[in-house]
Amino acid sequence: MASKSPAPIAVTPGDACGIGPEIVARLFGRPEGAGAFVVGDVGVMRRAAGVVGGMPVAEIDSPADRDAVPSGCIPVLQAKGLPPGLLDAPMGRVDARAGAAAAAFIEQAVRSVQRGEASAIVTAPVHKEALAAAGVPYPGHTEMLQALATADGRAPPVRMMLANDELRTVLVTIHVSLRRAIEGVTFEAVLATIRIADAAMRRQGIERPRIAVAGLNPHAGEGGLFGSEEAMAIAPAIAAARAEGIDASGPHPPDTVFMRARHAPGHPGAFDLVVAMTHDHGLIPVKYLGVEHGVNVTLGLPFVRTSPDHGTAFDIAGRGLADPSSLLAAVRMARRLAGGELSAWSAT
Amino acid sequence: MASKSPAPIAVTPGDACGIGPEIVARLFGRPEGAGAFVVGDVGVMRRAAGVVGGMPVAEIDSPADRDAVPSGCIPVLQAKGLPPGLLDAPMGRVDARAGAAAAAFIEQAVRSVQRGEASAIVTAPVHKEALAAAGVPYPGHTEMLQALATADGRAPPVRMMLANDELRTVLVTIHVSLRRAIEGVTFEAVLATIRIADAAMRRQGIERPRIAVAGLNPHAGEGGLFGSEEAMAIAPAIAAARAEGIDASGPHPPDTVFMRARHAPGHPGAFDLVVAMTHDHGLIPVKYLGVEHGVNVTLGLPFVRTSPDHGTAFDIAGRGLADPSSLLAAVRMARRLAGGELSAWSAT
Repeated sequence: MASKSPAPIAVTPGDACGIGPEIVARLFGRPEGAGAFVVGDVGVMRRAAGVVGGMPVAEIDSPADRDAVPSGCIPVLQAKGLPPGLLDAPMGRVDARAGAAAAAFIEQAVRSVQRGEASAIVTAPVHKEALAAAGVPYPGHTEMLQALATADGRAPPVRMMLANDELRTVLVTIHVSLRRAIEGVTFEAVLATIRIADAAMRRQGIERPRIAVAGLNPHAGEGGLFGSEEAMAIAPAIAAARAEGIDASGPHPPDTVFMRARHAPGHPGAFDLVVAMTHDHGLIPVKYLGVEHGVNVTLGLPFVRTSPDHGTAFDIAGRGLADPSSLLAAVRMARRLAGGELSAWSAT
Repeated sequence: MASKSPAPIAVTPGDACGIGPEIVARLFGRPEGAGAFVVGDVGVMRRAAGVVGGMPVAEIDSPADRDAVPSGCIPVLQAKGLPPGLLDAPMGRVDARAGAAAAAFIEQAVRSVQRGEASAIVTAPVHKEALAAAGVPYPGHTEMLQALATADGRAPPVRMMLANDELRTVLVTIHVSLRRAIEGVTFEAVLATIRIADAAMRRQGIERPRIAVAGLNPHAGEGGLFGSEEAMAIAPAIAAARAEGIDASGPHPPDTVFMRARHAPGHPGAFDLVVAMTHDHGLIPVKYLGVEHGVNVTLGLPFVRTSPDHGTAFDIAGRGLADPSSLLAAVRMARRLAGGELSAWSAT
């Protein structure tokens, strides 16, 4: 996959009234910006550039023109069909125009990847209420990307991976109550998660990923004393995955599996990835050493998509205060994933 | 409290067939052993000392005699009423004799503290099945300590605190399934936990502890979208605690509150302590950087009790392989707590 210089990375600015455009503008003042371009609106990006130091914006006609744009300049592929008055939408507020534009950016970025003109998508944050106000029929990025990737009438099953430099975790359940999350820990859901995680890691360069599957309950159920989901759903799913040749292990006690998987100097990770049953089992350890290093990766799509691990931050939008660290990490991760350069942590 | 040299710390070796005696023996080869003594069995401690390097064991008649024992020597207050044949119990196996002895060690250590002859108790691990085999009517340390501390017929409510050098967390629920843990997140349980945590921190030197209360659900319930326990139980408990003058805040999203509370060089903790709703929300971050640094502290007892954050490790018992780090940390923590020397993290 990585035999020649890869296509550039498409970056969407997200909600124009949030911090997305300004952190995307900052990207092009950093080494990470090389080989990336914006699928967005020239006016929105000019305004954002003004907020963070005034670098010039260059409109490009196609992703292939990206290389002709000098560094320090923001290459923007102008999205089509944007609502009128987008620049009139006030910063820091829910606005249907910003929601409609954000959806257009994403759709046109996906088309660039599907045509082979871009190698990956990095998405700055959208706002759920703005999408809804615009009548966009998807609550967020993930559902929209699934729909855009639908083939033969079937949307691909996807999972959220959160990753930083020392830990990767893939979630079986995400944005539901803990009660509903427990209901969501089924044999099918756990097995599908293991399969998606394994396939993604293989495609991205890890030959035989070591996948640790965490339990749901304290001590992974303590032999049935503290809950039955391990015996009823998780252990059978691990067994089924192993029968398919996947190097899955567990169920491991949740309180120590992340510590064991952590890959840091002098502490080689015992696993390449942890499958976690709940949002917070997975996110607490990924965020523990600093949210600015975390990257959200959507696994299961037929293309690479990453995003920063934060929202639109309306409270500080348009003031040049937003920290681009997580977006920079998302671009670095997208480049590694698109190049099939992910490493097994035993080998790094 | 810390005006003069405090009474020594009573250390119990736990299950004689586990790693407890050998890690306790190692304690007396380290600076942490100064000012500590064993409430145990001279024979068991001689055997353990032989495994880890052969330091001498000195039987003492009372805790006050501890100071006469030279460093590098293990001072043991011989427990009374031990079962015959204790030294015949095979290493690494569940044995009723070891269970009965472990219970006797604990009871006699508590009596030393209650008489003012010891300033704190540090307990090496017991084995639940050995206690049960011996007919001990308590499943573990905590319940036994509660019973021994019962006054006026009432056992004090207690909570488990897990702490390391950068994070302290107190748990509302512990060793139950996640389903039952959710049922256990009640107004009364959360408020009692906040009160116990606040009182313990104040007694131990923090004037006005900043207590962060984590939510139960993703995003702390996202305004009711992801669960109702925050609105029904946790937020009202925080409000009630604040009305009592306690500096409690939340419910905070579980995935970021531990990161915010983490106190490390260049990263002052935003809180002195986090109240966590479930075993693994609290233990995942405490253990993430290494289980060997974690200490278990029982809050709510009328005396200081700490323990290492691991079990009897029957698989390596008696071979001199066990790492005493967590026990050493438990002794250091007990000394600070007994001396009222805990610091608010804003000030350190």
